[in-house]
Amino acid sequence: MIRDTGNGKLQIPGKFELLGTDPSCKARRGRYHTAHGSFETPVFMPVGTQATVKAMSPKEMHELDCEILLGNTYHLNDRPGPDLVERMGGLHRFMGWDRAILTDSGGYQVFSLGSMNKITEDGVSFKSHSDGRTHFIGPRESMEIQRKLGSDIAMVFDECPPYPCDKDYACKAVRRTLDWAAICREAPRAEGQLFFGIAQGSVFPELREECAKALVGMDFDGYAIGGVSVGEPDELILRGVDDTVDHLPQEKPRYLMGVGEMAQMVESVARGVDMFDCVMPTRQARNGAVSTRRGRYPVKAALYKEDPRPLEEGCTCYACQNFTRAYVRHLLNVGEILGLRLITMHNLHCYLEFMRDMRTAIEKGRFDEFRKEFHSGYRVVLEEHALNVKENN
Amino acid sequence: MIRDTGNGKLQIPGKFELLGTDPSCKARRGRYHTAHGSFETPVFMPVGTQATVKAMSPKEMHELDCEILLGNTYHLNDRPGPDLVERMGGLHRFMGWDRAILTDSGGYQVFSLGSMNKITEDGVSFKSHSDGRTHFIGPRESMEIQRKLGSDIAMVFDECPPYPCDKDYACKAVRRTLDWAAICREAPRAEGQLFFGIAQGSVFPELREECAKALVGMDFDGYAIGGVSVGEPDELILRGVDDTVDHLPQEKPRYLMGVGEMAQMVESVARGVDMFDCVMPTRQARNGAVSTRRGRYPVKAALYKEDPRPLEEGCTCYACQNFTRAYVRHLLNVGEILGLRLITMHNLHCYLEFMRDMRTAIEKGRFDEFRKEFHSGYRVVLEEHALNVKENN
Ligand SMILES: [Zn+2]
Ligand SMILES: [Zn+2]
Repeated sequence: MIRDTGNGKLQIPGKFELLGTDPSCKARRGRYHTAHGSFETPVFMPVGTQATVKAMSPKEMHELDCEILLGNTYHLNDRPGPDLVERMGGLHRFMGWDRAILTDSGGYQVFSLGSMNKITEDGVSFKSHSDGRTHFIGPRESMEIQRKLGSDIAMVFDECPPYPCDKDYACKAVRRTLDWAAICREAPRAEGQLFFGIAQGSVFPELREECAKALVGMDFDGYAIGGVSVGEPDELILRGVDDTVDHLPQEKPRYLMGVGEMAQMVESVARGVDMFDCVMPTRQARNGAVSTRRGRYPVKAALYKEDPRPLEEGCTCYACQNFTRAYVRHLLNVGEILGLRLITMHNLHCYLEFMRDMRTAIEKGRFDEFRKEFHSGYRVVLEEHALNVKENN
Repeated sequence: MIRDTGNGKLQIPGKFELLGTDPSCKARRGRYHTAHGSFETPVFMPVGTQATVKAMSPKEMHELDCEILLGNTYHLNDRPGPDLVERMGGLHRFMGWDRAILTDSGGYQVFSLGSMNKITEDGVSFKSHSDGRTHFIGPRESMEIQRKLGSDIAMVFDECPPYPCDKDYACKAVRRTLDWAAICREAPRAEGQLFFGIAQGSVFPELREECAKALVGMDFDGYAIGGVSVGEPDELILRGVDDTVDHLPQEKPRYLMGVGEMAQMVESVARGVDMFDCVMPTRQARNGAVSTRRGRYPVKAALYKEDPRPLEEGCTCYACQNFTRAYVRHLLNVGEILGLRLITMHNLHCYLEFMRDMRTAIEKGRFDEFRKEFHSGYRVVLEEHALNVKENN
């Protein structure tokens, strides 16, 4: 479980190298080591829900220089099931991915996707969204599934309250999250498998502080900021980061769960976040939305019917090096899979390149400049489409 | 339009090098030159109906060593339309494919897919299957669409009668096909664009002979055997080949349209056919059917739930080198695109490798041996599934 990272040095999984910090803010440049190689931070982890990043092959993920993927415990538990994955040699071997994998705990999906039956102090029973059978997942079950999957980083099983949620409920969710974290702490793990605690606390700073401090006391390999991006107004997402990050140790990675809007990622990096995951680039690709450094746009719009430009000008991805907007639009119009493939590939490249550029900016001590430049050119939706989007809402 | 083929010699499009023949039968080993490079024959041309081979990228088609694709005039006329393709620089540039493309004439689709309105001596008017508008395609229109697409090989517009069809109807279809071929003969073509005549005649040897001879008199760049694989019993397919091939010149390529069942391809090669196209490997992939040298099988079958073997043992394709049947089955079960991609890639590899092996066998003068060995190991559906398939029918 100790792997040669290529520079001749064997690195212990869990080692976090803090390579630099930006003078203007809390942005950090790091490298985290796992049993399947290291990844550079700040990092964006593409989501491979069902043992594949939708529409992509592992080879293409390699070509994008992706170093870590996220797998979903809830979905993999449902199909093909952790026992089958274990018998097939674990998730890496099963899906043909030799780099790092982080698995979530399934907690978020159990609370949001499944038709929940009952929460007890032991966990949650729920009806599977695929076959209607009743399942039960608690902290022990979650860790056991993740052990069988053999991910490099397991997440503890937490309760993620929705937004809005009153303080009393948020407080109970924090208690339960801490109780469950303590159980996960003692659960068996795969060889070399790291695990991260998840700080909850909803929009209440004192709960966030309490939860973060208690988790740090349990000494996990890293810490996630959970319970953000659950429907609250944008400004509250960053407040959740601020309320948590200062209570986390410098020497461990910090992971902001489920946040993938580019403007929020820059701001979160500025606040000291190292890791992100989000379905946004892959899900939006399936809706025909192209991510760019200036915002996203719907390539099916009539505007692009004969547009000879690549999806994003200046982009070096395979899609942009070889195909026009007019062609991708045609593919979407006739329902060809290659259309989804090309947009997904481009969107992921756009995200990974964005992280690379942030890392370089931190290294060079000019993150503040990068951050300002980014915001000055960026709209969530490209200006030429913003009006249409408003009219359609 | 004359291209350096890499060996330092500039070759004129339309040159057919007959590299060898098998002593035991009429099998031929050849090389055909187009404005976008040459291809080795016998060749299988994967079908890229709507300006893409379904689920594949041009890069992957390159990696499979594919040298020529087929595009569909009917579908491309419908969407995105030949004018748009022409303005985008032609079909090669539009779809990012720099090797050879053959376009069919649209005739087969007009007669089979569209809801036909009327056949006249000028062509066919029909309702588009995508938008319900009325279109008209005749020999002039077909050639003009293909000119705008800029394919390397255009096919003449023919009438392909269904099976069964009485001799009177078949005779009229031959007359019309010849009249239309004469019109196509005079139509403008793209620079370097070759064109093939199509011999019809249904199951009537004297009509096939008449049609083939008349076309040869018009001196096309190659000749297709059309009107086979239209629902007739298997043995009649090969009889259609036999009835046509002897009336075609040795020095031009012969293309059997729409035949892609492996056993029929071997037998057709043995009868002197050089070129094939068929949607079978790509369409069956979308149905979860895996092609192998021993026959096809449905990888979704419970039998393969934990099968650690690749789709086909011994196969060198990316899918087989990296993934198990259990994984591909899982991908299909959860509806992931990568499942279709991997089966499509494998099936195309299987077909192209099959052609490579036939070519080598002819080169080495042991095609007869290859043919016998192939048949002794081959069932259309793998034996272990044949029973299920029968029961389900
Ligand atoms: Zn791109
Ligand atoms: Zn294969």
